[in-house]
Order: sequence, then structure tokens, then C-alpha cells
Amino acid sequence: MAQEKKLVEEITSMEEDFAQWYTDVVKKAELIDYSSVKGCMVIKPAGYAIWENIQKELDRRFKETGVENVYMPMFIPESLLEKEKDHVEGFAPEVAWVTHGGLSRLQERLCVRPTSETLFCDFYANEIQSYRDLPKCYNQWCSVVRWEKETRPFLRSREFLWQEGHTAHATAEESKERTELMLNVYADFCEEVLAIPVIRGRKTDKEKFAGAEATYTIEALMHDGKALQSGTSHDFGDGFAKAFGIQYTDRDNKLKYVHQTSWGMTTRLIGAIIMVHGDDSGLVLPPKIAPTQVMIIPIMQQKEGVLEKAAELKGVLSSNFRVKVDDSDKSPGWKFSEQEMRGIPVRIELGPKDIEANQCVIVRRDTREKLVVSLNEVNEKLSEILETMQNDMLERARAHRDTHTYVATDYEEFKQTITEKPGFVKAMWCGDEACENKIKEDTSATARCMPFPEKQEQIANTCICCGKPAKTMVYWGKAY
Amino acid sequence: MAQEKKLVEEITSMEEDFAQWYTDVVKKAELIDYSSVKGCMVIKPAGYAIWENIQKELDRRFKETGVENVYMPMFIPESLLEKEKDHVEGFAPEVAWVTHGGLSRLQERLCVRPTSETLFCDFYANEIQSYRDLPKCYNQWCSVVRWEKETRPFLRSREFLWQEGHTAHATAEESKERTELMLNVYADFCEEVLAIPVIRGRKTDKEKFAGAEATYTIEALMHDGKALQSGTSHDFGDGFAKAFGIQYTDRDNKLKYVHQTSWGMTTRLIGAIIMVHGDDSGLVLPPKIAPTQVMIIPIMQQKEGVLEKAAELKGVLSSNFRVKVDDSDKSPGWKFSEQEMRGIPVRIELGPKDIEANQCVIVRRDTREKLVVSLNEVNEKLSEILETMQNDMLERARAHRDTHTYVATDYEEFKQTITEKPGFVKAMWCGDEACENKIKEDTSATARCMPFPEKQEQIANTCICCGKPAKTMVYWGKAY
Repeated sequence: MAQEKKLVEEITSMEEDFAQWYTDVVKKAELIDYSSVKGCMVIKPAGYAIWENIQKELDRRFKETGVENVYMPMFIPESLLEKEKDHVEGFAPEVAWVTHGGLSRLQERLCVRPTSETLFCDFYANEIQSYRDLPKCYNQWCSVVRWEKETRPFLRSREFLWQEGHTAHATAEESKERTELMLNVYADFCEEVLAIPVIRGRKTDKEKFAGAEATYTIEALMHDGKALQSGTSHDFGDGFAKAFGIQYTDRDNKLKYVHQTSWGMTTRLIGAIIMVHGDDSGLVLPPKIAPTQVMIIPIMQQKEGVLEKAAELKGVLSSNFRVKVDDSDKSPGWKFSEQEMRGIPVRIELGPKDIEANQCVIVRRDTREKLVVSLNEVNEKLSEILETMQNDMLERARAHRDTHTYVATDYEEFKQTITEKPGFVKAMWCGDEACENKIKEDTSATARCMPFPEKQEQIANTCICCGKPAKTMVYWGKAY
Repeated sequence: MAQEKKLVEEITSMEEDFAQWYTDVVKKAELIDYSSVKGCMVIKPAGYAIWENIQKELDRRFKETGVENVYMPMFIPESLLEKEKDHVEGFAPEVAWVTHGGLSRLQERLCVRPTSETLFCDFYANEIQSYRDLPKCYNQWCSVVRWEKETRPFLRSREFLWQEGHTAHATAEESKERTELMLNVYADFCEEVLAIPVIRGRKTDKEKFAGAEATYTIEALMHDGKALQSGTSHDFGDGFAKAFGIQYTDRDNKLKYVHQTSWGMTTRLIGAIIMVHGDDSGLVLPPKIAPTQVMIIPIMQQKEGVLEKAAELKGVLSSNFRVKVDDSDKSPGWKFSEQEMRGIPVRIELGPKDIEANQCVIVRRDTREKLVVSLNEVNEKLSEILETMQNDMLERARAHRDTHTYVATDYEEFKQTITEKPGFVKAMWCGDEACENKIKEDTSATARCMPFPEKQEQIANTCICCGKPAKTMVYWGKAY
């Protein structure tokens, strides 16, 4: 039994040191490895398979809204990056610069894309002539580079994988509609597939994307009470169109500027899954996103017929589930521990006595609930269990978020809550950046988002910070 | 009718100027656009959708052989690139160098990956300890950069998309087996899915990959008689393992070096599809890879019931085929011309008279054969037509290649054939690089590959160039 304990003992407990627990889990669940390139990670098969499932599901949802995929160059000439003033100010300090191609110095520096608004705008300026060419709803799956100083696997790295959608529309109404539509696609995906409840809202001007008129966001709460921005959708209005000269001839034969959006989700979502659902035994994957949903672990596998029955069971299940058999020469206890570390939603234990009784034991990863199930109805039971588990995970995460969401109407109370009780604090704000800055200075918390009108609450009439008339309710929190 | 002719008139005929025809087709079929970044292209929706289908099909075939996907950083520190002598000599002259991150100069230059052998080796050196860790069969889908001077869409560009597989094995036999296995996966994919027949064989030492012990290749013949290297699979033996110190403890408790392979296919395949199957009306896509297989074109669509029937037909077909309706306000002739330019395998013409007779007209893109089909059996007929078309395309390409494959036993005859008759020339070779160099100088042709033993033919006993005893038969040709 010494061996069984080892794997779990190698990870720090969440309560003791959440940051170390996170680092241990990403390593021990074999999601990533560090590389020789500072700040860049290797995404290993177990990690990349989660990303593939995220891609598959998001891509399908994008295409249902009429989005088409394209691929833009990974380099941006310096002059192109500089075309939109706010944008270059936001990104230039953190890009990687290519100065040489082969043995020669380039005439103009190229940056490795930190995001591709400028490339899409350059492309759209040629591509769009008439109202007939609109809308354009393009997306690309790629990697981007931002020269971060502090990095953490999945959460902040110098290179990360993402998708970036870039659309162009005839009117301001249409671009606003698309911005909202994609935010809702993101939010539904997080809740339905990743079992992560999110707050939808708008970023303050201080927190919005460089060059955007409005940035919408979904914010999730991690187990440690810190917020994670999980997806953003930007409405550019006609700002980029004016900087890049993207005009079209409308039905009335007048030349007009297009209105644009962009929206992105990244491998950071994998960090969110870990930090929302994980526990002291490791990763817990929601069934809908898990690359392997079921691990069959034979007990006393050296006994005649056990491995055969396990393989047979795999065959029975594999048209409905993503299922594997662990027939390695490790002990069952060690296998349980590995399956738990990797977050595989359920394991099926199958030994000689089970076979004799025509049954197996299904164990849920999240609750460790055990169920003895007849082999005749294992498909149906497994469907039920995985569905229940998916729902329970969402509800548990929602309950955790709700019990860690506080209200403050007085600045002393606000500071105390945000310092002592990790979570969101709902409080009113006057709309002045000075108050945001003071709050950040005093507490290190930021305005995560201003919920949409239908979710606004009139908690108080005055700003939590300055006491002037309040304009909006804000979710405040410390964030990754 | 003036309008109908226009689209086709905009492309040069193949016979007149093949290179210009190619450029016209990639633009007019809306596969790519040029970008502000010299030598890099924008892959537009119609082009990217072909790549997505290639990815889906190849990825499935890889996974069936036990391959898992991962993601490595896009940057390689200069010192890492330099670890294997032949490799750095081959790639250093054509890489892009990152020298600055944000506002600071980097301590060590990073190149943007031209290929990732060095990164995988660095990773495997840590990851592999014991024979239990073997084999490792990893692949990644990504973009790579090579600072080419002359570029052409899909065929040669500074950045291109590809997959690169990198495996590590316990023995030389296993790495050889994997190298061959992946070459066969590539060859089968080209023939079964892209309808492109290929010659399988081995590269000469002069033509092999920088750092490889052996490079296997599949070579296809384009319509203009030039060869296109369409996929390569490299056996590294233990060369990289020794340079990077990748060792494992074997069952006999001895420390041994691993044996490695790598293999890749790129967006260049889209160039091959165009140049093997295209014609003077534009692109012709094999049904299995076509993003849209069927375009329904309503005739007299302003008449009551026509658009409704077209939509109904789409509904009937869409569980079996990738089908669209072109209900734009263009004329039917213009729509035919667009569908042909884009290479959509079949169109279905549906007008009031057809509806009255409960029929439609199916037109094949490749042969322009028209078939009147009852609406009751359109699903079955369409299946047959697409299957026949797929097979016919492969057979036509094979016949074209075979009639453009010549034999030479005498150097004057060889030079004349290769100069005057575009295609492959089969001829014997002594194995000496001096003869390869002379042939290239005299004719600009290169050794495309040495077919595997079972496909070798004893055309003559002496080298076509120097007259010394021949070692092997070679397919020679001019190549992209």
C-alpha cells in the first residue's frame, strides 16, 4: 500500500498552498511540462486532448452562427501594428520582435502576433468593397505570443493557444449583436460543457481591450476565491475601420465604415477546469470534456478471464463513451490513484467475483460514490452517472461561487471583505477611474465586470469608494 | 451571357502558361490572398476548409496507429538548434530570429521553429528514462517558418501549416518500421482521399533531411509534368539521441540510446490537389476532400416554389453529403461558372420543369456529364456519382502519370527526354553524388526517389551518367 499512497502524497494539499497544489496537479496529471524556452510550456497528450475537445465543441458552436475559419500570417510588420494608436500602446511593450531572416537583417521589424486585429483589418480593407461583402465572420485557431514577465502554466505564458474571431459588419447594431452573441456562446459553453458557472458583463474602460469601444467578459470564480477572466468579446465600433480605411459602398451608394468585433478563448480554460473542479487527489474533469471518460481497472487481472472480460466490457461501452482499460502491471490501488490524479470521471472496477456475479463497480471521481451495477445495464447506468456528475459539478461550482460572493455598501467593510474573504464582492461604483485605481491600490482587487442591465442590483446609491452617486454595480475581485 | 464568360476568361489557360494558370486559380477560387507580410499568405475560408478536411482525415489515421497530439513551443533557443551538426547546417541559413522581447534585448536569440526535432529531443531527454516509457509517438499541428527567397502560394511560403510527428523507440528496427508505417499512411491518404497517385521510395543522401539517416518520400506528378514531394518520413537512427543524450534503461538494465523518426505533411498538399486535378475552368476537388460536395443551383428561382423545393432537396441530402444552395441573385450561368471555379464536385440544377417532372439534373465537375435523376432516388444516385468521380479522378491522374513516365538507358536520350518531355524519367544510378550533381547541372532535374526494392526495375546495368556499375533505379524529374 506504500506505493498507492505515493502519487497523492506528491501533491500539496489545496488548503495548505493553493498555488503549489495547482503546479503539482498540472505536472502530476501530466498536462504540461516546462521547456527550455523560458515562459513557454510543452502541452503533453493529456493536456492537449482536453484542448482538442474544447476546440471541437467551440468550433461547432461557432460554425452554427455562420463563422468560417481562416489562417493569417503569424508576423505583423511594425508599421501595421502601429496603425491603431490605443492598440499599439497596449501591445507593443509585450511583443517578441523578429529582426533577422536567415543571414540578413530585415528592412522592417516584424512582431510575432500577440493578437491579429491589425492583420484582419489589413485584409478586410482589400476584401470588403460593397454591402454584399458583409458580414465577414472569420475565426482562426493559432498560437500567440506575449512577452510576460511572470508566467504560470495555462494561466499566463509567453506563448499560448487560442482562437480569435474577427468580424466586420455594416452597422453598429450588428457589431454589438455579434459581440453579445459570441459572449453568450462562450458562457453557454463554459456552463454546459466545462461545468463552470460564469458572470457575464462588461469591462470598465480601464480594463477593456486596447482599441475596443466595449469589452464584454465572462468571469469565473476559482476554488481559492480568485477570479479568472475566461473569455472576452470586443466591440470595436468603427475605430479600427477608420484607422485602416475599411469602407464599403452601401445600398444607398454611400461609402461607409464597417463596424467590427473580435473575441477569444484560450488554453487558460484548462487552468479554469483545474482550479474550479480539482481536489486533493488531483484533477477532476467534467465528463463532457474528459478525453477518457471511463477507466476500466481489472482486479486480480492475472486470474484467467479477467482481462478478457475487461476488454469485452470496453467493447460494449466504446460506442457510447470514451473508454480505456488499464491493464498495466501496476497494482489496482496505484491505478485508482492514477485515474484520480488524471481526473478521469469514473472508473469501473472489475474482478473475478464481479464477473461471477455478472456485475461491476462504478466509482465516481468527484464524490467517490460507489455503485454496483449489473453488466446487463452498464451502458444505461453509466449514461445516468456521467450526466448526473456533469450537473452536480456545475451546481457545486455555482454553490461555491454563490457562497463566496459578498455584498459591501461601506468602504471599510469592502476592504475587509475583499482582504479576508476570498471571492467576489458586489459593490456600487461611480464610474470614475480614480476610484478603480484607489481600490486596486488599497486592496489589489480589480473591477471584474459590470453585469448587464438585467442582472444589475441597486445595492446602494453611492460609490463604495468616493461616496458620489453610483452609476453601476460592479463585481470586484482579485484575479489571475 | 457576357457575365457567364467573365469568370473563366479571367484565368489563363493551363497550356498557355501553367504557372499563371495556377496563380489565377488560387486567387479566383478564393483559396488564398496575399498579405502585407512578404512571402506569407492569408488562407481564406475555401482554402482553410480543405486543410481542415485534410487534418481531420490524417489525424484520425495517425491516432489509429497510436499517435498522440502535443504542442511544443514555437521558439528554439540558438544553442538548442546547434546541438545536432547536420541539422543546424541545414536549417540555420533559413530561419527567422527573434532578438527582442518587449523592450529588452534577449540574452540568447530564439529562432521561430522551421521544424521541431530539437525541441522534441530536448523534451524526450527528460521524459524518457526506462524501456517502459517507450515508444513515444507524438505529433503536433502547427505552423513553421522558413525564410525562403522565392515563394508561391501553398508550394513554398515563409510560413506554412503542417503536422510534424516525432517518435522515439527502443530499437533501430522499430524506428525503421514506424518510418515506413507513416510513409504508407501518407501514401494511402493521398491515393484514397486526394485521388493523387504517388511513388513511394527513398531519398538519396544529397536530398535527405538534415540530420536523418534515411528519408522516405512520396512523389506525385503534377499536370505540367513536374514532380511534387508530397510527404516525407525520416529515420534518424540514434543520431539525434546521441547529440541530445536521450537514453533509457532497458530490461537488461543497460543504458541505451533511443531511435527516432519524424514525418510531416503540409498545406502544400492543397497545391498538389490544384495541379493534379484542376482544369481551364478552375479547381476540381475530389469528393472526399471537398468542403462542399454538392451545390444546388435553382433555375428561374423567382418562380413560386423553386427556392422552397431547393431548400427541401438540401434537407433531403444533408445527412449524407456536404451540400449548399446558391440562392444569390446572380444568373444561373454565373453560378455554374463559380461552382466550377471553386471545384465543387457536382452541381444539381433544379428548375420549374424539373420540379414538375419530379427530377433534377446532376452535373459532374470533372467530366461535365449530365444525368437526369428522379428526386425519389437522388441520395442513391449522388452516392454513386461521387464515388465514381473519386475513382475516375485517381485513375485519370494515374494514367497521366504513367504516360508521362519515361525510361532512359543512355545519357543523351536521358537529357533529351527530361528536357523535352515533362515527367518522370526512370534511369539507373551508381550511387555517386557527383553524378547527381552533373545531372542537375546538365538538366536541372533531381533524383526524386529510389523506389523500394519490390518496385525496383533492372533497366540497365550501368549508371546513366558515368557508365559505372549501377546500384539502383531512380525516378528523376524536375520538381517544385
